[in-house]
Amino acid sequence: MTAPDRTGPALWSAQAHMPSVLGRQLTITRGEGNYVFTSDGQRLFDGTAGLWHANIGHGRAEMAEVAAEQMRTLETYHVFGRYLNDRAVELAERVRDLSPVDDAKVILNSGGSDSIDVALKLARRYWQLRGRHDKTVVLSRDLSYHGLHAFGTSVAGLDFNREGYGTDALVPETARIDTADIERVRQRVAEIGPDRIAAIIAEPIQGTGGVIPPAPGYLEGLQRIADEHDILFIADEVITGFGRTGTWFASERYGIRPDIITMAKGISSGYSAVGGIIVAPEVWEPFYTDDAPIYRHGTTYSGHATSAALALKNLEIIEREGLLDRVRSLETVLADELAGIAADPRVAATRVAGFLGGIELGPAHSAERITDAMVDEGWIARPLRGNVVQISPPFTTTDAEVRGIVAAVRAGLDATSGATAPELAVAR
Amino acid sequence: MTAPDRTGPALWSAQAHMPSVLGRQLTITRGEGNYVFTSDGQRLFDGTAGLWHANIGHGRAEMAEVAAEQMRTLETYHVFGRYLNDRAVELAERVRDLSPVDDAKVILNSGGSDSIDVALKLARRYWQLRGRHDKTVVLSRDLSYHGLHAFGTSVAGLDFNREGYGTDALVPETARIDTADIERVRQRVAEIGPDRIAAIIAEPIQGTGGVIPPAPGYLEGLQRIADEHDILFIADEVITGFGRTGTWFASERYGIRPDIITMAKGISSGYSAVGGIIVAPEVWEPFYTDDAPIYRHGTTYSGHATSAALALKNLEIIEREGLLDRVRSLETVLADELAGIAADPRVAATRVAGFLGGIELGPAHSAERITDAMVDEGWIARPLRGNVVQISPPFTTTDAEVRGIVAAVRAGLDATSGATAPELAVAR
Ligand SMILES: Cc1ncc(COP(=O)(O)O)c(C=O)c1O
Ligand SMILES: Cc1ncc(COP(=O)(O)O)c(C=O)c1O
Repeated sequence: MTAPDRTGPALWSAQAHMPSVLGRQLTITRGEGNYVFTSDGQRLFDGTAGLWHANIGHGRAEMAEVAAEQMRTLETYHVFGRYLNDRAVELAERVRDLSPVDDAKVILNSGGSDSIDVALKLARRYWQLRGRHDKTVVLSRDLSYHGLHAFGTSVAGLDFNREGYGTDALVPETARIDTADIERVRQRVAEIGPDRIAAIIAEPIQGTGGVIPPAPGYLEGLQRIADEHDILFIADEVITGFGRTGTWFASERYGIRPDIITMAKGISSGYSAVGGIIVAPEVWEPFYTDDAPIYRHGTTYSGHATSAALALKNLEIIEREGLLDRVRSLETVLADELAGIAADPRVAATRVAGFLGGIELGPAHSAERITDAMVDEGWIARPLRGNVVQISPPFTTTDAEVRGIVAAVRAGLDATSGATAPELAVAR
Repeated sequence: MTAPDRTGPALWSAQAHMPSVLGRQLTITRGEGNYVFTSDGQRLFDGTAGLWHANIGHGRAEMAEVAAEQMRTLETYHVFGRYLNDRAVELAERVRDLSPVDDAKVILNSGGSDSIDVALKLARRYWQLRGRHDKTVVLSRDLSYHGLHAFGTSVAGLDFNREGYGTDALVPETARIDTADIERVRQRVAEIGPDRIAAIIAEPIQGTGGVIPPAPGYLEGLQRIADEHDILFIADEVITGFGRTGTWFASERYGIRPDIITMAKGISSGYSAVGGIIVAPEVWEPFYTDDAPIYRHGTTYSGHATSAALALKNLEIIEREGLLDRVRSLETVLADELAGIAADPRVAATRVAGFLGGIELGPAHSAERITDAMVDEGWIARPLRGNVVQISPPFTTTDAEVRGIVAAVRAGLDATSGATAPELAVAR
């Protein structure tokens, strides 16, 4: 064991085993459309849209102009108490209009993890206010990812994100449910007791868990269980919100009616740190009556004016350029390509839903090693849990680029074949 | 009780009793230097720098240009695993260089609440890794404010922020300590058992609790307790970081040596949503050894490139314009003015530390009512817990403006005298 170098770089990277990462870091310095460029001048196709967020592509001049104009006018003013800024108000209206939830209220903040914590706190607070004091437990799916603030960490279905803090979960009133089998979910709900359950949170399509579309009937089953037992249904649409599945929200695609929707990423395509929640009337109304208590949420950058202006422009671009239609067509191209590679004996399975694909490799191959080989050839993909290669490029991707990245996975398999799969660093 | 209006505005404001706030909201649409403007064209002196963050003032063209330039080049790329962007790397180096902690590592994210959750998770994770499995409890001060994600909510010393979720705290391994009396803190530590205590978190100057500078010897006392008992000392410098007290960090002013510093607000003066933590070597080194586990933090916008570029420019402006010197001189002006108003029999107490002041009103007067009267006259101040009026303008404030806002408090007292103090909405 060598002693760590105190003079190394200051930045502690995210989800990184620093000793393995130092010395092989890729520094991105420029972005243009579906491509980014490293400090060494290498051009890379952004086959993941960053962390499934860069949906309109990189470095858009129109976005830069909006940022500058808004910042010259008003970089931001907060939305606490009596104060508002016009851009926050406008973004909330826009999200309400796009949302599948009628008469919703919108809470804005700065990212997906923020949206999880405020949603789960609201679920807990709601039942206390309604006098159902035992309803405190939050259920989440095995393999789920809901960000890494304390509440998101506590409901993590990827155990490595929840473990290591000395107790089963930071917030103890949480439990896992089966990710595919609705009968087992029913049993679990019965065991815990529905009167103790505040909410079920679910990604319509599990992302970080390995790109897992819902088993047929599963989401509808969760909806029924929630309806039958007075359990709030929270759809975590941080990845799927704002077009990734070809509809504004995956809730539409799958015909569910969540009480709360969490959102981030696609709302701004990553041009600014924006997240938030969409809240149905049955949940917000008890906080809007004259004798109601305050629901105590709020962060300094809730409704940040420049962030909101950028989100508004991003949504305008998605609409103007017909990117929802484009996603539906890209889904069929990606599905075709994945059907092709699924026949490769080195591939265990492929999955696709929306413009979101996963290629699960056989045990003799390593998603981490293959994505490393791919980046050397100019293609960014990401290894996910379960030895899966993530493919989720920007909505502005061409058909040829979709074919290109799937071919690059095949080339990566060829380049690394024979090598045995090391334990994945992501699952360390 | 009237039924809430389903057709009202979509935005659910922060820390707001919506039925009381609707119909009397102030929409800010423009900012210039120390002033902001409402949709009605009213010009308001920003006597709080928004939420103690707008330290370089509003609407700076130089910041707008940086945002546009960075966004055209690369709006952002994430810093997960092997990936980096040049601006995130640069900001981390800059923060390390300014920081009072030698050889620090820096984790970046999007706000103060983020920084709290990642810091407290790290404290818990650190002791598990060191094999001190019982060290799980986090101590925080009465009246403290540490943001509103689940961990920050759990350590809230302002009880109304922690309560209403059905259990004493969302994360149960937390406890409160006396906010001023170090002997009582010692007793509490002994009661709980130092071997169970992971960390003490403390704002050097309590902000939201009512602008409360540390009692003489208090912070030094916490430092000694932490040193004696292997307890991590976390300084929450979300308000005080980057110059508010006339030094880059309040830890310097008060001579403490925290293991972790949380930061946000002043790092970007609110031009972008940035936060993060500064971590001392004894805490990061165990995660940097070859056989170390990953510390599982990371949000999509950790190290956001445009946000980082704005923070870098903000820090450059603070340095170039000599704003730390200016803060020290503004502190004396504010202290003089507060000494003046302290003689008013309607004022219970005044407090100042750095360019941060609080005026505590007598029980016959209402900070909420007075700040409402002030805003009608063009002066923004904020009511805080304890019937306190917050004064914390931008660092670019003139001496005359400091005198002006204190005079406006006096005028507010005159205008509302005779009226009885209603229960504060902030304490509802
Ligand atoms: C489904 C889901 N929820 C929540 C989050 C957390 O979002 P953020 O990283 O912006 O905090 C993510 C991020 O990947 C996500 O995929
Ligand atoms: C001391 C302190 N810590 C943490 C926070 C939370 O910061 P944010 O509102 O950016 O989440 C605040 C915000 O006022 C604060 O004053």
